[in-house]
Order: sequence, then C-alpha cells, then structure tokens
Amino acid sequence: MGGKMKALVKHKAGYGAELQWVDIPAIKSDEVLIKVKVSSICGTDVHIYTWDDWSKSRVNPPYTFGHEFAGEVVEVGNEVKNVEVGDFVSAETHIVCGRCPQCLTGKEHICRETKIIGVDTHGCFAEYVALPAKNIWKNDPLIPFDHASLQEPMGNAVQTVLSGEIVGKSVAIIGCGPIGLMAVAVAKASGASRIYALDVNPYRLDLALKMGAHERIHTGEVDPVREMVKHTEGNGVDVVLEMSGHPVAIQQGFRMVTNGGRVSMLGLPSKKVELDITNDIVFKGIEIHGITGRKMFQTWYQTSGLLKSGAVRLDSLITHTYSLEEFELGFQKMIDGQCGKVLLIP
Amino acid sequence: MGGKMKALVKHKAGYGAELQWVDIPAIKSDEVLIKVKVSSICGTDVHIYTWDDWSKSRVNPPYTFGHEFAGEVVEVGNEVKNVEVGDFVSAETHIVCGRCPQCLTGKEHICRETKIIGVDTHGCFAEYVALPAKNIWKNDPLIPFDHASLQEPMGNAVQTVLSGEIVGKSVAIIGCGPIGLMAVAVAKASGASRIYALDVNPYRLDLALKMGAHERIHTGEVDPVREMVKHTEGNGVDVVLEMSGHPVAIQQGFRMVTNGGRVSMLGLPSKKVELDITNDIVFKGIEIHGITGRKMFQTWYQTSGLLKSGAVRLDSLITHTYSLEEFELGFQKMIDGQCGKVLLIP
Amino acid sequence: MGGKMKALVKHKAGYGAELQWVDIPAIKSDEVLIKVKVSSICGTDVHIYTWDDWSKSRVNPPYTFGHEFAGEVVEVGNEVKNVEVGDFVSAETHIVCGRCPQCLTGKEHICRETKIIGVDTHGCFAEYVALPAKNIWKNDPLIPFDHASLQEPMGNAVQTVLSGEIVGKSVAIIGCGPIGLMAVAVAKASGASRIYALDVNPYRLDLALKMGAHERIHTGEVDPVREMVKHTEGNGVDVVLEMSGHPVAIQQGFRMVTNGGRVSMLGLPSKKVELDITNDIVFKGIEIHGITGRKMFQTWYQTSGLLKSGAVRLDSLITHTYSLEEFELGFQKMIDGQCGKVLLIP
Amino acid sequence: MGGKMKALVKHKAGYGAELQWVDIPAIKSDEVLIKVKVSSICGTDVHIYTWDDWSKSRVNPPYTFGHEFAGEVVEVGNEVKNVEVGDFVSAETHIVCGRCPQCLTGKEHICRETKIIGVDTHGCFAEYVALPAKNIWKNDPLIPFDHASLQEPMGNAVQTVLSGEIVGKSVAIIGCGPIGLMAVAVAKASGASRIYALDVNPYRLDLALKMGAHERIHTGEVDPVREMVKHTEGNGVDVVLEMSGHPVAIQQGFRMVTNGGRVSMLGLPSKKVELDITNDIVFKGIEIHGITGRKMFQTWYQTSGLLKSGAVRLDSLITHTYSLEEFELGFQKMIDGQCGKVLLIP
Repeated sequence: MGGKMKALVKHKAGYGAELQWVDIPAIKSDEVLIKVKVSSICGTDVHIYTWDDWSKSRVNPPYTFGHEFAGEVVEVGNEVKNVEVGDFVSAETHIVCGRCPQCLTGKEHICRETKIIGVDTHGCFAEYVALPAKNIWKNDPLIPFDHASLQEPMGNAVQTVLSGEIVGKSVAIIGCGPIGLMAVAVAKASGASRIYALDVNPYRLDLALKMGAHERIHTGEVDPVREMVKHTEGNGVDVVLEMSGHPVAIQQGFRMVTNGGRVSMLGLPSKKVELDITNDIVFKGIEIHGITGRKMFQTWYQTSGLLKSGAVRLDSLITHTYSLEEFELGFQKMIDGQCGKVLLIP
Repeated sequence: MGGKMKALVKHKAGYGAELQWVDIPAIKSDEVLIKVKVSSICGTDVHIYTWDDWSKSRVNPPYTFGHEFAGEVVEVGNEVKNVEVGDFVSAETHIVCGRCPQCLTGKEHICRETKIIGVDTHGCFAEYVALPAKNIWKNDPLIPFDHASLQEPMGNAVQTVLSGEIVGKSVAIIGCGPIGLMAVAVAKASGASRIYALDVNPYRLDLALKMGAHERIHTGEVDPVREMVKHTEGNGVDVVLEMSGHPVAIQQGFRMVTNGGRVSMLGLPSKKVELDITNDIVFKGIEIHGITGRKMFQTWYQTSGLLKSGAVRLDSLITHTYSLEEFELGFQKMIDGQCGKVLLIP
Repeated sequence: MGGKMKALVKHKAGYGAELQWVDIPAIKSDEVLIKVKVSSICGTDVHIYTWDDWSKSRVNPPYTFGHEFAGEVVEVGNEVKNVEVGDFVSAETHIVCGRCPQCLTGKEHICRETKIIGVDTHGCFAEYVALPAKNIWKNDPLIPFDHASLQEPMGNAVQTVLSGEIVGKSVAIIGCGPIGLMAVAVAKASGASRIYALDVNPYRLDLALKMGAHERIHTGEVDPVREMVKHTEGNGVDVVLEMSGHPVAIQQGFRMVTNGGRVSMLGLPSKKVELDITNDIVFKGIEIHGITGRKMFQTWYQTSGLLKSGAVRLDSLITHTYSLEEFELGFQKMIDGQCGKVLLIP
Repeated sequence: MGGKMKALVKHKAGYGAELQWVDIPAIKSDEVLIKVKVSSICGTDVHIYTWDDWSKSRVNPPYTFGHEFAGEVVEVGNEVKNVEVGDFVSAETHIVCGRCPQCLTGKEHICRETKIIGVDTHGCFAEYVALPAKNIWKNDPLIPFDHASLQEPMGNAVQTVLSGEIVGKSVAIIGCGPIGLMAVAVAKASGASRIYALDVNPYRLDLALKMGAHERIHTGEVDPVREMVKHTEGNGVDVVLEMSGHPVAIQQGFRMVTNGGRVSMLGLPSKKVELDITNDIVFKGIEIHGITGRKMFQTWYQTSGLLKSGAVRLDSLITHTYSLEEFELGFQKMIDGQCGKVLLIP
C-alpha cells in the first residue's frame, strides 16, 4: 500500500513513548494489512511504557507497540484464504510455531516458540498494522468496535473462568484489574451462583459490583480468608480466580478454596511464592490451572459468543477513551489505577 | 405422629385419581416426615392419571402419587443426621440401592435398582410425605416454596444442558414442555450464545421466548433442519437438547447438529427410532448423552445455585396454581398442554 | 525430481486396478515428496478396488490410490519448515481446510471440507507420493517401517478406545477386522480389565486372542448379549467399541452396555439402524461417541507412543506381505477376510 | 463374637508398639467383623510407630493401629446388605460423613470430616477388625490375599497416575517408595510411553526397573531437570507424579514438566515450599492435582481391575513377610528403607 502513518513508537530504552510518522507496513504473502479503528491499553503496554525490569529484558526499541484492537482489513497477501478486504477483525496476539508438540495437540496458546504481537513484533498503536492471516479473528458485525477491541484481554478472563466447571458454584475473584473485572462478568454470564470480588482499590471494587459481583471484599480492611469461610458456611469457596499476582493474595486464595475446589491462576507474581502444599493442595485434593493467552480459537468463540448474545456487556468497563495523540493521558490513567479499560483511537 | 391427612390417591387401575383421607405415614429410623407446602404435576403424573400403557405395566394402585414438592420437616427418624425438624426441604425422586457398580462410582442416578417416589412408593400429593433421609435436599431459605418445588424437573433440564460445554455455543431445544422451557432458561443462564426453541405448540413457543430463547421455530410450519442450517451459516447447531421424544424430531436433531457437536437426549420415544449412524453420528464425530434423573447431588447444587443467584427465574413458567381439591382442573390443563407448570397446594 | 515411477492406478470406473508407469509427482512450495517404503491395504482401498456403491459416488478414476504407508522424505517445498530430506515419515490422511469452526477449535479431524489422500487425491500405492507438509508425521527411528505404515488405521483404533476412560474397565470389541484387532491391543495396553472380542470369523477371533483379548465370542454361535450379561454378573459391559457396521451387531452393542457405559462407534452401517433410544440410551444414561479419523495430532502421539514403548506389538497382525506387482493377491486376501493386515512393498 | 485376640497396640505416647491380648471388637448394626489374613505396613504406620510430630498431634494411644489388609468376613450387623459372612474383603480407610458438599458431589475421599481407620479408630494389625459395612470392598477371588492387602496404597498410586491422561505420554515418578513403585507399574499398565523413576535410593531404583520403569535417574548423582530435558528432546516431560514430599524434588518436578503438562502431587512436604508460579505454572499453562485417598469407589474398581487382568503384578514389590509377632523386624525394614512392601501375618 505504501505511504506514511501515525504510530505510537517505543522509541528508546527508557520511560515513555513517542508519536511518530512511520512507513505503513508492507505485507507478506500470508499476511493482511488492517486499518486500526480502536485500540486499548493492556497492563503489558504499561510495563513497556514505564520500562520495568521485564521490559528491559524482553523488548527491543524502537518499534510500534500495542496488541489489543479492532479494525478493518484493507489488503491481503496472495496466499490468504481465510480473510477478505473489508472484513471487520481483531487478532490473537500469540504468533505460534505450528510444529511443536503443543501446537500439534491443540495447545497452541502455550507454544514454546511463541512471539507476541506488540512485544516481539510491530503492534497496533498505529493507523495500520500488518499481521499473519492465521492470527486474524473475524468479528461479528453486531459487536461494536470498542467492545471488539477488548476480546483479547476478555479471552484471558474467559479462559480463566472456564478452565473448569462454574455453573452453580461460588467464585472468588482476587484482583479487580480489567481482566478481573471481565472475569466477574464472564462468571456471572456462565451461571456462577455467587461472585466475590476481592481487591484493595475501592474504585475497582465499585466497578466489580457494576460488572455483576454479588459482594465486594476490601482485602485491606478485612481478613479475606475468614470472610470467605463465613460467606460459605465454613466450607470455603468453590472456585478461586487469581488475577492479582500478589504473593499474600495467592496464599489467601489457596486457604479459602474448598476441598476439591479449583484455583485458576492468571496473575504473575514477580518472585517465588511459598505454598503449604500438604494442607492447601494435597489434603484438599484441589486442582490448580495455570492460564496464559487464549485457546486458539475455542476461547475466541466463547468470548465473541458471550458478547454477541449480550450475556456480557462491557460498557461500564470502558471508562476512558482518548485519541492516539493523547496517549500520555491514557497511560497515566492506567498507571494511577483509577480506571477500567482505556481506549486509544488512531 | 399419627392422625389422618388428605391425599390424592391413584385409587384403581384406570383413568383418574381420588382425594381421600388416609393415615399420616409412620417413619422408619432412617426416614423423615415432611409437611408438603407446594407440589407440582409432572408429565409422569399425567401418565399415571390417564393410565397409559407404561402406567399399566409399572404402577400398582391404590397409592398416593406425586413426586415434585417443597415442604417442611416435622419429624425425623432416630438415625437421621443430615436433616432436622423445621428444615425447608425438597427431595430427590430416585431411591437407589447404594451397592451396585453405578452407585459405587458416582452414578447413583442410573442405579439399576432404582425405585421412584410417587411411582414405586407413596408420593407427595398429600399433606404429608415420609421419605428416606438420604433423599432429602435442604433448600436455601431465599428460594420461594413454589420455585423450590420445581427443582426436581429443573434438575432434569440442568443435567441435560450441562452434560457438555455450553458457554458461547448455539443450542437447539427440541420440545418446549416444562423441562424444555426450563432448559431454555438454564442454557441462557449458563452462557449459550444463541438459543433456538423448537415445538409445534404456539403457546409453549411463546413461553420459550419469555424464558429467554432468542428464536422460536414452529416445526410444523418450517423445515427445522433447513432453518437451523440457515441460522448457523451452514455449519449446523453446536448443541441439540432432545426433550420431545418424537421420532421425527429426533431424526431432525441429528441432522441439524454440527460436526463434533453434542446431542443430549432426555425425551422418551415410545418406539424404536431409525438413525443414520454413518452420516449423522460417525462421520460427524458427535457425542450423544442419554440423560435421566439428576446427578446425586451435583445437579441439585447447580440447580439451587442457579435459583439462588437469580440467574434462572421460574415465575413465567408457573402458569397455574390449584388447591389439591382442584386436582382435576390441574390435570386437565396438563393434558391440554396449554400451560407451563401446574402447582397443587395441599 | 522428474522421471517415472510404478504406481497402482485405479484406472477405470469398474472392478480392479492396474500397475502403470506414471510421472513422479511434482511438489508445491508447501508439499514434500516421499519415497514409499511400505504401504498397507485399507478396507477403503478394497471398496475402491471392487468398485462398490460408495466408490461409484465418490471416486474419479484414473488416479493412484492408497493412503497407509511409511517412507522417506526425498524433497521438500521451499516453504516447508517441519520436515527435512531424509526424515522417516508417515502421514495423516485427512487434508483439512484450516478455516472452519471445527479446524479452529481443535477438531480438524472432522473438518467439513476434508479431502482424503488416496480417495480425493493421488495416494501412496506407488514408489513416490507428494503430500502437504502439514500432514506429515515424523516417525521414531525405533519403530520398524512395516509397523509405522499401520499407524493411520491404528490411530482409528486408538481414538475409538480412548474416547473415554478405559483403565480397569470391561470392553466388548464388536468386529475383529484389522482396526478391531488393533483396538484389542490398544485396550490391553491401556489397562482394560477384561477384553471380549466378538465376530463371526474364527480366523479373526483367533487373531484377537493373539492380540490380547481375554475371551472370543462367536456371535453366530451364541447370543452375544446373553453372553456378555453372564460374563459381567448381570451388570453389562462398561465399554462397547463398535467396529462392525452391522445393524444387528450395533443393536446388540447397545443392549449389552451397562448403565452409564460408553459406546464408541467407528463402523459404518450401509443403511439406517433402529435403536431403542428410551431403554438403551436415555434410561441407561450412556454416552455414545462417533469416531472418524484421528485427532490431529493427539492421536498420532498416543499411537506412536504405544508402539515406541512396545506396549502394542503389531507382529501377529501383519499376516501377508506382497510386492506392489502382486497387488491382486493382496486384494484377494482382503476380500476373503482370511488375513490381518496386508502390506504392499513398492 | 466375644473372646480375645492378638493385636499390635500403639500402647503409649512414645516410640514403638506392643503385642497384646485384647477383646475381639463387638460390631454395631451397620458394621462387619473381619478375620484379618494379611496386613501390610504403611508409611503412616511408621510415623505412628516412631512417634513423629504428626503422630503426637493426631494419635491417641492406646489403640490398635494398621489399615492395609485383606481378610474374611465372619460376622455382619443386622442392617448390613452389601456384604455377607464368608466374603473375601479389604477396606477403604477413609470413614466419611456422607453429608457435606464433598460427600454429596462424588468427592467423598476429600470429606472434611474424614476419620481414618487405624489412626482415628482401631485398625487391622490384629486377628480381627470391626469396620463400617460402607467401607468394605469385596475382592475378586482371583486376587491373592497378599496382593489384595495392597489395594489401599495401590489406590493412591492409581488415583495419582490416572488423575489425567496417560496413554502415550512420558512420565516422571519422583520418589520410589512403595506407592511410587506401584505408580510405575500402574503407569506402565495404562499405556505411558516412557517411565522415568527418580530417587536417591539405589535399592528402590532397582525395584523401579523391576516394576517396569524404562529409566532410573539417581537424583543425587545427576541433575534430574537437565536429565529429563535431555530425554525429552528439550520439551520436558508430559506428566510428573510427585511422591517424595521433598521441597527440592518438588521444585525440580515443576521445572521438568512440559508446557501444558500435568503435576499430580501425593507426597507431603513437612514445611512450605517456594514455587516459581509465573514461569513454572502460569506461563507453562500446566495443571496441578492434589491427590489424597482413593475415589470411592472408582479408584477401587480401577485398582482391582488392573490386578485381576494381570496388567499390574505386585510380586516383586512384596520384599518381606513377617508374622505379627515379628513386627519389630518389619518396622525396622521400613525405617531403613531397604524394602518394598512389608507384610504382617496375624
């Protein structure tokens, strides 16, 4: 296609990013070019923006970052069969090898050679993004652009909630960042009997109630284990969704889960965590599921199905929308934590 | 306890039933006596009332029939530990042996020595009913009596809907009698993306919309297979719940399900049905689940959880309420099919 | 590569086949060329050879048929990354679209746009075969060529046996053709407690004992349902693997399975079959699984794992080996049914 | 029955035990009296014998201990329906409440009110033992008494191996005590493709080879993580069975498992263990299963099925047999660790 476009570039090894004019990317025979309509900021983008330890060890500036979006296909490579110009699309962020035992047994989302869009390749904080056709998800026209752009993180929530049975079960969601908040809505839409939202941030606990939680538990003000035991008549909670990554919260999660319960872990602690394996795992006979990415593409079907039916509504989650030029305002909101999802419009 | 009580007695081998004064039943050491607050009429009760072929071969009058109810415990046997006087309860209808391979491997609901309350023993269309303590389910005080009385048939719906994955999937529910209608609500509450209600009865198709169906399909007016193929862009429907027992509807169900889909069968055809095993089962790689009863007591937890959270509301399903004395009106409604659930109050 | 090769060609719409000299196939950028070391005859090949009704409706002569083989890669297309020249390989027979809901949710084996190697494309009864790189399975060097060539049909057996739990369970295998015989060995290697082989062919019943069956049941001489009830102390058999496709045998399979048991169906009846859904499916609460192809590639991992560990040994199954020139002898053996697997060496 | 019997009594709060003459226990209406033919020593018995910290906090002398056995029923209570005098039996060790959510949803083995035979009640190191009829497992006459007595610990192994898929998978078994050794045999019988036995005790590593392991890995002499990576071509092992309870071994287990793999944990570390949740659990997308007891009674069916079919043979595991009078020799063998299972014959 050629020409220039606006792009939010991680320009150097250090804090911040820069809006630049860069070349519109050229596509390979198995890629598509997408005009980005809406993008949204992920916690990972904040790590890259603030240049934390993880970013230093993983990211190579300069490049365009961002990976959550919805847009329209404007060009397709000559081998592409699954997408056409004009399609309304989003994309799976994991670019996988297709050859390892994981990829060959339906576990592409944990491919050991995974590259991540916007981390290891150019991303979507731009007017256009070029992506492998295999990663494209065609959106239902009924889903609005801004909601469609949230399917990638919502897929994390969906995979976490649905990694085991949920209907009629009590659920504690530890950590009410955007994915935890979406997990509240997904658990509600999937038949959980009672949803407890746990966090230390009152703004986000309030959002959790709007997303459908039955109870908010401020873990800085009450002992969450004692609270959950009380709410469950001494039995413990059926399902714990760990979205916080905090060592203490993780340990509390293992203590509050009932015998035979499930702990699904998405949060990423920055250091090792001590667990009481004997009493909290073995004697309780629980299951623990590590969750990363989205099943390709079972999770996408579930996610778009929940949006299409209206069972999950994301309106109250989208608290702020900025133009790409206003990116500094958006990132500051995310850093302050006084927000749900923050959108950037190219 | 002693004394007399009103009871609806299947008094003879023939049509109808009779309201009689009978002895309040005495309980054994492992039984409880329950004062019935609300009972509801099941299709099985109608079979017994109208004295169809199945009833002739199975039922031995005179006895009190009925098996769906909610009530209050008024007396407990001296070995009973799980229930107390004053508890608000309903009951699982299957009395199982506890010794066979099915009972010993978590499949009590398909015990080969099952006796059914109100069919093989005295039932609940009475002021009092005596039941094994093992069959008692304690109700949450938040659930109203009339809704609580519907947990037994709703459990059929719950087991059918949840015998496989449902979140984000399209579902065809064939047959919109009371259990089919409850299946609509359960599928909705469990995250189905699109629910199609199929029947020939416009009254029940309307009820299906009230219970949450997205589409009603009158199978006498359109070709349901063609309709479902159209609605699913040629792919077929993900899940078929067969609640009708009609041979033609069953065959249509197998034709409309997608490759790798699921057919859960609760309806009882009165004769053998021809299936195209090669094309509809083997080449499609589908799963078929025969469903009977309720898992003891996983299904009860799921059912009461859905009611307690408000995810399933049964108000529009309960279309008629009569006193036990007015039983003839209630049975006539059921025979005519112009109703949802019909309650009898002792 | 160019040049000529020997190939067994389905040369016309009618009985038989013809050995011809044809062009060695050219490969596309995503294909590989394989020198075939061993091929084996499938029941499908016999259908094509004898030109039955199914073949008439599906197959377009002239073309090279055959799809079970092991060989060595001699050339790879320039986009191929998963295979190298010199690799010892076999291949999955289903060429799938990669774009439909089935392909995108880990169910590629039931893709609705499947093409089958040797049926819809040129096959492996030849010195060389060109195949999509995506279909190639790399063999462990520890597995002999002749055993490796049987992984495709053994994969059918593996998927059928393992579509549900098997350890400690009693299993009836109905139909002891080559796949049924392999199912005997797979069930044995996977911990089945008791394996019953059912057929009317004494030659194959004897082979079943060699493959590890505990009992042979000649279904023409005894009532197999009564026999299985007797062997299981009245309970019925836990798992039925239907490999025969015979309507009567299928009906017997449904009668002999226990409450809560499993019937996995691979056999293809040529017409519709009447089933007693009420008594044999619903009231029994069983699961039925339609099985086709092999999961891509979970089943291949399981199959090669069983061969590599020596848990399954195929020696006694390979009863006849011919050169490609002797193909008429091989096909005649298969038609007569007095054989296990028949190999053709190009 | 009355009279006196020999019993091995934990006579005091301190090291050791004492052979005493005690009353033959009287049975309640729901109990049976069993003449013990063979008993075997469990690690738990050694804890009680040596009076470790756990014993001090849990056990109340004086009482008869021991819980693994096979025997013959000599008397049944008048409410007992599932067992008869003369039956050859063993017993599930967990006495459960039957009323909690776990017991009511098929998870009796993790009942929160569990009492353990020989720990919380009189056990089987005696000529007779009285037990609840509900705990009795009827043995197949084909299984020898000494093997039958090992079903309880073998059930631990069976539940651990079979808590996920095993056919065609590579398995690392960490800790080759008696249950680890039985896990080797169970994994072999269930179709594992490659079994790695890990321990620091050469005697037990040798036994592991006899039980069917493909490789022995002395974890004191080589780095087990590097070794497993090497054996699996860099991919990691599919399944880790943690039977050791050692913190370092547990950490190694989590490092050696492949992405999407399974870690089933039966070993009981005596203190908390630090885990790298981010890299070893979340990013790998693994499942962890806490395992305790035996599923009641699915695991017993699987266990006895494996013994009955001959798929698991325990001969080489039973290394020492003593009379009850020689108990000190038996316990010393267990303390030294130079043994497989040690039997005591009353």
